[in-house]
Amino acid sequence: MPFRFSRCITLTLLMVSASSWADTTPGSSVANQGIPEKGVAPCMSCHGPDGAGMAPTAYPRIAGMNAGYIARQLKNFRAGARSNPVMMPMAKNLSDKDIEAVSAYYAAMPIPAPAAQPPSGDTEKIANDLVQWGDWSGRTLPACAQCHAADGNGIGAFFPGITAQHAGYIKAQLLAWKAGARSNDPLGLMKSIADQLTEKEIDAVAAYYAAQAGAKPIPAHNTAAVFIDTPKEKADDVHSGDVHQQGAPPAGRKPGESGYFQSPLRDAIAETPFGDAVRQGQAIFQDTNTHAVSSRYVGNDQACGNCHIDAGRLALSAPLWAAWVDYPAYRSKTGKVNTFIERIQGCFTYSMNAQASSAGGVPAADSETMVSLTAYSFWLAKGAPTGDTHLPGRGYQRLEETKQGFDPQRGAAVYAAKCALCHGKNGAGVTDADGHTLFPPLWGAESYNWGAGMHKIDTAAAFIKHNMPLGLRESLSDQEAWDVAAYMNSHERPQDPRFAGDLQQTAKKFHASKFSLYGKHKSAKGFILGEHPATAPKSQQKQ
Amino acid sequence: MPFRFSRCITLTLLMVSASSWADTTPGSSVANQGIPEKGVAPCMSCHGPDGAGMAPTAYPRIAGMNAGYIARQLKNFRAGARSNPVMMPMAKNLSDKDIEAVSAYYAAMPIPAPAAQPPSGDTEKIANDLVQWGDWSGRTLPACAQCHAADGNGIGAFFPGITAQHAGYIKAQLLAWKAGARSNDPLGLMKSIADQLTEKEIDAVAAYYAAQAGAKPIPAHNTAAVFIDTPKEKADDVHSGDVHQQGAPPAGRKPGESGYFQSPLRDAIAETPFGDAVRQGQAIFQDTNTHAVSSRYVGNDQACGNCHIDAGRLALSAPLWAAWVDYPAYRSKTGKVNTFIERIQGCFTYSMNAQASSAGGVPAADSETMVSLTAYSFWLAKGAPTGDTHLPGRGYQRLEETKQGFDPQRGAAVYAAKCALCHGKNGAGVTDADGHTLFPPLWGAESYNWGAGMHKIDTAAAFIKHNMPLGLRESLSDQEAWDVAAYMNSHERPQDPRFAGDLQQTAKKFHASKFSLYGKHKSAKGFILGEHPATAPKSQQKQ
Repeated sequence: MPFRFSRCITLTLLMVSASSWADTTPGSSVANQGIPEKGVAPCMSCHGPDGAGMAPTAYPRIAGMNAGYIARQLKNFRAGARSNPVMMPMAKNLSDKDIEAVSAYYAAMPIPAPAAQPPSGDTEKIANDLVQWGDWSGRTLPACAQCHAADGNGIGAFFPGITAQHAGYIKAQLLAWKAGARSNDPLGLMKSIADQLTEKEIDAVAAYYAAQAGAKPIPAHNTAAVFIDTPKEKADDVHSGDVHQQGAPPAGRKPGESGYFQSPLRDAIAETPFGDAVRQGQAIFQDTNTHAVSSRYVGNDQACGNCHIDAGRLALSAPLWAAWVDYPAYRSKTGKVNTFIERIQGCFTYSMNAQASSAGGVPAADSETMVSLTAYSFWLAKGAPTGDTHLPGRGYQRLEETKQGFDPQRGAAVYAAKCALCHGKNGAGVTDADGHTLFPPLWGAESYNWGAGMHKIDTAAAFIKHNMPLGLRESLSDQEAWDVAAYMNSHERPQDPRFAGDLQQTAKKFHASKFSLYGKHKSAKGFILGEHPATAPKSQQKQ
Repeated sequence: MPFRFSRCITLTLLMVSASSWADTTPGSSVANQGIPEKGVAPCMSCHGPDGAGMAPTAYPRIAGMNAGYIARQLKNFRAGARSNPVMMPMAKNLSDKDIEAVSAYYAAMPIPAPAAQPPSGDTEKIANDLVQWGDWSGRTLPACAQCHAADGNGIGAFFPGITAQHAGYIKAQLLAWKAGARSNDPLGLMKSIADQLTEKEIDAVAAYYAAQAGAKPIPAHNTAAVFIDTPKEKADDVHSGDVHQQGAPPAGRKPGESGYFQSPLRDAIAETPFGDAVRQGQAIFQDTNTHAVSSRYVGNDQACGNCHIDAGRLALSAPLWAAWVDYPAYRSKTGKVNTFIERIQGCFTYSMNAQASSAGGVPAADSETMVSLTAYSFWLAKGAPTGDTHLPGRGYQRLEETKQGFDPQRGAAVYAAKCALCHGKNGAGVTDADGHTLFPPLWGAESYNWGAGMHKIDTAAAFIKHNMPLGLRESLSDQEAWDVAAYMNSHERPQDPRFAGDLQQTAKKFHASKFSLYGKHKSAKGFILGEHPATAPKSQQKQ
């Protein structure tokens, strides 16, 4: 059996390297000898000297996991917030100091090579779809990659690496969330997802990740600093909004339900030059700020896909199929009829702050970027009736105003509880070393500027209500959505490109709406918003 | 009664001015005294001293008509090709010289003011629609204005002015064509139209033109020089093609029949800023080379509407609604995916020879011209399924090749018989003093250049078969369409903008198709086509 053979080689090789770790890392004592006087067995007894775990018993790989993640699990075992008959008695006897040390020890350990073979055929296809795309249009199900990073190696302390992990362990966890036996997932995100997965799908993604080479998770220090972790006993309260508990559908029609326009399947992109343009458009849409073709026009850390979930397919998330059949159209924002291309150029001007890009402006109508995005949008709309400005699910579906109005201060608490997990304390989101945006920045120099639609609290509230947190759409109450939208937009961001030197004139001309705080509200630093807009020296050096 | 009153004043005034004409014009003798020895009564006996005719008896206004037109009618009366109990005996006794003289006399006479009041209400609407737009989508019926000029004052010797003409006379002629009592209309064009008009419609257009102020017809000297007029006895043979005699529908589906996509009604353009853009797009589409917004991008006498009949609405005439849902698309011509805007820019580059325009190139994607044309095309496609590349009636519907192939020499005879009537001996078409294109030029400096799709014989043959002669679609045989397309494209026209200095290299790279004569065929002047392309010094001075 090739499995056993390669496994033995791996173990032998890694025991050598692990022993050198044992000599130099503070947590090595607990890891390799345990704490006999407290009844704590050496971690390596089950997880192996190389931290690779054991496939047959579904003991997880812990080598190279994020230290914060390991520590959190140990503390959860210790507090009973995560239940496991083997780990709970061990963790109970570990001090905070022990936990920090042993977590650091394993976090620093090299990740063993995956022992499993990747799935093939149907299973491979099921896994690839879920890993990369999820099932937004069917079940509003995010892709694994959206929180565990594109390569599955994890992000920070809350989104563990799941590569080179034993399939049995991954499957056991998904089944545990589904059954309610595990519930220490932030916001109940994993339960919400696991509830909707079939066992076949669980097997497929488990097999997929088990065969992926591991690498260290992407650091996300700013996210851990503010998010309020939810202990087990409160797990049932995380959905303070109106619905979406236990995977139940939200009130009203879910995007995946019938009645919404359905774009062609991704697999249906033809192997033709036109199909190539569509594929490239899809890639640019998702990674606008880092794609080789389009990055030069993006002056911040934003991509189209950040505001248009499921790569522009999802109803109620300003789907591109609805926008396509709606343009050309008159826009009060520009005071004239704009073509679809001009509309997208508007996204670059405001949401992607093209002025601070290396190109210094938006892509031209005949640029590769624009042609690709246009081809992709057109393809998404295949079959939609031209000029139908009432397609269900178009735009963000306005959210009714609440009696209480909106309040940035109330919103701060919502933000800490529901948003900081991904977007971080300072709203800067998470970007990997190559500049890929994992969680988009919500304010500051790398976010959309003061001219973007999202800076308007009504637009943001609608987007948030129907789309956030990712995978838990409609879980915030209307009031929470309004308040957190106000909080988000009460911070500085890049200047409105229409600013011509005078804050109050600009505010009067372009920000008369009560839903814009520009030129009116004082930021936490005591300046009126727009007075000291965030600048992006980093972006200006972008390629 | 205001009618009688104003009529008397008009007559009195004009009798004065008419008497001065009598003194100086050679034809005055026949007109005012007749030729008593031959039994020819003075024309003024019935047509009045001012040539205004008489409304109650439906004697036509002849003052200010084109001399060639008057002469042709007199000769037709004389030969029996036009039947009338009063005119035939008179004309029988007129010599060619008499006819030329009296025709010149009346042609030079000022046109009396119209005596009738314009129609209102329903009748006005019926008239306006037929006069300006015809009923292409319903009955493939051209607008009156398409042959009688926008103002109805006529073009050359074959398309008489019908303004300030008595309603009774207009109605009588239309009914005569319909009944077969009159048949001296070139190509049977008027019969084809009259056959399809209801009496209500006839009344409406007659009333409309009777109230329009008259002006001298637009000269069209080059059209009369070659067109072979059809005598009465051959009137039934003019439709040498397969069908469309007696107003019967052509073989296959007519554009107006069900099964073809229907654009919104013209009246449905909203009174909004978007509607304004659509209206402007429609106006630019029809008068691209003279419209204040778009003329600067047009380097010849072409307009979009020349190749896209009924302002881009007509099936089988490359309708814009089909093009709209088809783009972006990969084009082998450009070797890449083009957006709809790029496609239209291609029309400017090739069909409208933008290089020779005052702007020196095509309109930018965000120009007023392009936004208007885009808005108009989008609006025409309202309700059409995005991405449907198989809409019936799209493009020009390829014409099957014939056993005989195509032959420019054979085509010359077809051209003389069927096309020169409008497009003229030298293919230059007819343009009015303000530069408006009445009949588009088919070759020469003011026509499409060697890069336009229409220069390809297969494309031209398909267009001609399904759309020409205007109002007699499908009346040419396939063989005639192929041959005349070859004839048209065997003349010089402006250079291919892709030409880079070497004729044979350009031909090899862009004209390998057997349907292009560029770089292969010798023109009548003995040069290989493309060797001495037509240049447009006039266009270069355009505003």
